[in-house]
Amino acid sequence: MPIGQTVDVRYVNPFVASAMNAVLTLCKVEMQRGVPYVKDPAQPRDYDVSGGIALTGRLTGVVSINFTRNVICSLATKILGEPVSTINHVVCDLVGEMANIVAGTAKQYMPEEEDFKISLPTVVSGRFQSHSYPPGVPCIVVPFKTAPGEFTIEVAIRVTQKN
Amino acid sequence: MPIGQTVDVRYVNPFVASAMNAVLTLCKVEMQRGVPYVKDPAQPRDYDVSGGIALTGRLTGVVSINFTRNVICSLATKILGEPVSTINHVVCDLVGEMANIVAGTAKQYMPEEEDFKISLPTVVSGRFQSHSYPPGVPCIVVPFKTAPGEFTIEVAIRVTQKN
Repeated sequence: MPIGQTVDVRYVNPFVASAMNAVLTLCKVEMQRGVPYVKDPAQPRDYDVSGGIALTGRLTGVVSINFTRNVICSLATKILGEPVSTINHVVCDLVGEMANIVAGTAKQYMPEEEDFKISLPTVVSGRFQSHSYPPGVPCIVVPFKTAPGEFTIEVAIRVTQKN
Repeated sequence: MPIGQTVDVRYVNPFVASAMNAVLTLCKVEMQRGVPYVKDPAQPRDYDVSGGIALTGRLTGVVSINFTRNVICSLATKILGEPVSTINHVVCDLVGEMANIVAGTAKQYMPEEEDFKISLPTVVSGRFQSHSYPPGVPCIVVPFKTAPGEFTIEVAIRVTQKN
């Protein structure tokens, strides 16, 4: 895969598969994958909470899982078995753990043995927009539809050629 | 350094030094380092824009540089030589580049040769709070005072023992 604006879906699909597994396992909700698209840096999306994991090595970049308040509170209510209406600490922990699972289990779905390490998760909450840099790295947004609403994963990675 | 709530300042100071260098070089402003403190996860700070870099390897974690709108707009005005009043794309690029310099140049200030890789920077804008996970990793906040106001770096790292 050349460095640039093209993205090889073989490196994005593993994160899609692991995200579906993570949410299905944790939240036990049905979901449908929407049509992926390249994020327009001039029109970033608004989220309320996001868990991100950075990758370093042959695959370099950031993978995040992103929710609006309504959706994560509905999912957290299912997981915790008690009503959740705000993005509190427990919810942030949950989103961090989801990000960890998404990045951590993606390796097994990769087309070949990939040389990358994953960072500790970080969680951002509030009303914010996320941007990935440098601008040469395209960010693929994959939406997922669930009964409570939509969430996304964002995959902004660069793959260097093997020598 | 044991894994846990203690932090060896020898691993934090390199990021402080590189942050001071980065801001001094780019913005040409005087600054004073404030007293570092451990971030209370229950009372995270509010920022308007933040550039973060993840580290993987023997040093694992996240380092970020964080600004309120007023401060980054003042600094960006100095750098760009034209009035900046909103956190636009150019400002986000700038914050990403600052994060890159902070993490990228810290290696030279480390107490010994450290085995870590740095990720691509990510930038978050809006009105948000950042959290670092897992909770066992303490986050050290280092404030810096400049004429336009205060900015911070946050260092949340875990150092594994050498075998």
